[in-house]
Parts: sequence; structure tokens; C-alpha cells
Amino acid sequence: SGEMAKVTNLLSNEAFQAYATYATIILLKMMLMSLITAYFRITRKAFVNPEDTASFGKGESAKKYLRTDPDVERARRGHLNDLENIVPFFGIGLLYALSGPELSTALLHFRIFTGARILHSLAYLIPLPQPSRGLSWAVGYAVTISMAYKVLKTSFYP
Amino acid sequence: SGEMAKVTNLLSNEAFQAYATYATIILLKMMLMSLITAYFRITRKAFVNPEDTASFGKGESAKKYLRTDPDVERARRGHLNDLENIVPFFGIGLLYALSGPELSTALLHFRIFTGARILHSLAYLIPLPQPSRGLSWAVGYAVTISMAYKVLKTSFYP
Amino acid sequence: SGEMAKVTNLLSNEAFQAYATYATIILLKMMLMSLITAYFRITRKAFVNPEDTASFGKGESAKKYLRTDPDVERARRGHLNDLENIVPFFGIGLLYALSGPELSTALLHFRIFTGARILHSLAYLIPLPQPSRGLSWAVGYAVTISMAYKVLKTSFYP
Repeated sequence: SGEMAKVTNLLSNEAFQAYATYATIILLKMMLMSLITAYFRITRKAFVNPEDTASFGKGESAKKYLRTDPDVERARRGHLNDLENIVPFFGIGLLYALSGPELSTALLHFRIFTGARILHSLAYLIPLPQPSRGLSWAVGYAVTISMAYKVLKTSFYP
Repeated sequence: SGEMAKVTNLLSNEAFQAYATYATIILLKMMLMSLITAYFRITRKAFVNPEDTASFGKGESAKKYLRTDPDVERARRGHLNDLENIVPFFGIGLLYALSGPELSTALLHFRIFTGARILHSLAYLIPLPQPSRGLSWAVGYAVTISMAYKVLKTSFYP
Repeated sequence: SGEMAKVTNLLSNEAFQAYATYATIILLKMMLMSLITAYFRITRKAFVNPEDTASFGKGESAKKYLRTDPDVERARRGHLNDLENIVPFFGIGLLYALSGPELSTALLHFRIFTGARILHSLAYLIPLPQPSRGLSWAVGYAVTISMAYKVLKTSFYP
């Protein structure tokens, strides 16, 4: 229908298409942190909910698995840092993609952010010595600020 | 005006309308977790900020309410799990709704995700024995992956 | 090109432009919480990852900086509360901006939410006595509910 065409037009714009691609990739990467946390919880036998340890038996034998583990906590911190940084990227990036950026400039922003956040996760999980994690965090942060500047310059309506 | 018409056209597309409905419902459900946490904090008298216990008096009499409570922590974990899963659904779902899906397929995705996350919250809060919580989490996760696949198939621009 | 024009049309709608402005401002405010947490971590010398304390020397001399600090934890709680509340505002607000609201009504919603969340951060960080933080939280929450009502009234497609 005609209305369907209008909606899909948004995704026929190349800068918006690039946004859709990288936003999806980086949200999938964030979702991967759930699996990594689950992997560490299961292999390290470190759970937080009593109902999760029921399969290990009852009483004290199961209770000992209600504990924190450094690898689990590390994965959880990486996941929370993703939320804190990927949410602003998704939101500001969406508005940026709608603000009519040059395709090449937009691709540069999306690619650098995506690369920086993948490096951030590696730096957090391996872990790499600082300032690897700090720098990859700062690069993603700066990309988001740059997009925010473009959005506000294009459509400031306070 | 003509421009207003163009904007509202997005919401006259049925798949996008369905997205708007379910995205709003599931974000409201996530917001409900704040009220549930507050309810447990107040009924269990378990606070984290000293200024929140000022009404219980001064000094030691108030300090004893600065403590953690299993029900409060459970609600907080459910809320964080919502953030980790509903944010990707919102973001990938938005791009999916713009990618021109069949209305019936889109409705299927949105309804299953919304149902799964409501079940997840119930399984977390009651709590239900595993694998209730694990399965409801996995169903929501799989729906989001399926939408991501459609987005990348429709508009891959790396 | 014509397609670019269609995309940028979204940002030529005044209510959507207002949304873009306030959504960007409040996401930038949320990002500021990362810097505030980092500031407290560095000035209070309170870190969580061993690799972050390597510059303080090796062994026990560095280990003592792996600790929690009340100011760091307070900033982190403020940041998490932002995520819990600004994510629904961003999502529901986007759909609300697309639902064809009156410009003046939309501006009222966006401005009150933004003001309330800035007050919430101040109330959390200073900290101000209650009910400052509670009230500013409730105002932002109510604004989001009001926008959700408009979205569901405009485009309910269950």
C-alpha cells in the first residue's frame, strides 16, 4: 500500500540504512553480554536466586552456590556499561540519522562507535591493561557527543 | 499542515501502529518495576539513602533501616533484566517495524515478546521455580534476534 | 535526493523537532553521570577493577583502592535511576512525538520531564532532603504516563 511505501522510505535512505545496520549490530553485541554472564554463572556455579540452585540439591548443598564470582561480576559491569553508553548512542544516533547527515560522515560515526564498543567489551572481559578500556569508552562517548551536536545544530527547538 | 500529515503517516501504518502499542505497553510494564521496588522498600523498611530514612527519626533509630532486603533486591534484579532486554526490543523492534514486515508476522513478534516479558516478571517476583524465568527470558531473546535478522536482511549497509 | 527530503521531513515537524531537542539534552545529562562517577572514583580513589589501580603500584598498596565509596555509589544509583526513567521517556516520547500532539502540549511534556530529571540528579547528588528526590522522580514518571496514554489513544492496535 501507499502508506507502507512511506514507512519503508525511511529505510531506503542510505544514512538511515547505515544507522539501522550498526544500531542492530551494537544492540546484538549488548545482548551477547547476557549470554556471557549466564556462561560464567553456570561454569563458576555462582548464582543469586535461590530457585536457580534448586537442581544442585536442597539446603546447604545448594546454598553454597549463592555467591558472587569475579568473572560474573566483571561481565555484569561490562553489560551495565553497555547500557549506559549504547542507549545514548541508539537514541541520539536515531535523531542524527534523521537530521540529514552526509552518508560518509554518518558511516564514520557509526563504524567508530561500533568498533570502540566491541574493543571496550574485549578490554573489560579479557581484561586488557588500562588505558585500553578507558580509551575505548572515551572514543564511543566522543562519537555520541559529536552526533548530539549535529542534532542540536539541525533542530534546536527549546 | 502537510508536514504534520507526513509525520502522522508513520502511525497510520498498521505494523508501526502495532509496534507503538506493544512498545508502549512493555515500557509501562518496565516502569511498574519502579513502583514494585518502592513498595517493597517502604513495607520492608529497607532503604539505601540516609535522606530516605530521616522520617524514622535521627541517628541509630533511622540507621537500622539502611539495609538490603531480599524482596527489594529481587525486584531490582527484575528491573535491571527488563532494561537489558526491553532496550534491545525497543531499538531493534523500531527498525523492524520500519523494515516493512507482514502485519501478521509483526504482531506475532510483538505479542510473544510482550507476553514472555510479563511472564518473566511474574516468574521473578513470585518467584516461580525454574525453568519458568529462564524460558520466558529465552523466548523474548529469540524474538528480538528474529527481528534483528529481518532488519539486517532488509537494510544491510555496513 | 527525494528520499533524503522525506527523511528530513520528520525533523521539519515542530513537535518532532522539540522531541529531538529535549531527548538529546536529557540523554546528554544521563551521559554526564558517567563523568561524575569517574570524578568520584578518581578523587576518592575507589575502584572496582584491579587493572584500574595498577598505576598506584602493585600488590597490597594498590589493593586498598579496590573499595566502595558512598559518593561513587550515590552517583551510580543516580545513573541507574536515569536509565530506568529516561529510557521509557525516550521510547514513549518518540511514539508520542509521532502521534501528532499539539506543539504546545508536547513542549510542556518535554520541558517538565527534562526539568524534573535535572532536579532529580541535583537532589540525588547534593543530596537534598526528601521529598525533593521523590517528587522530581514522580513528576517525570507522570509525564511519561501521560504521553503513553496519548500514544495508546492514538494508535491502539493490540
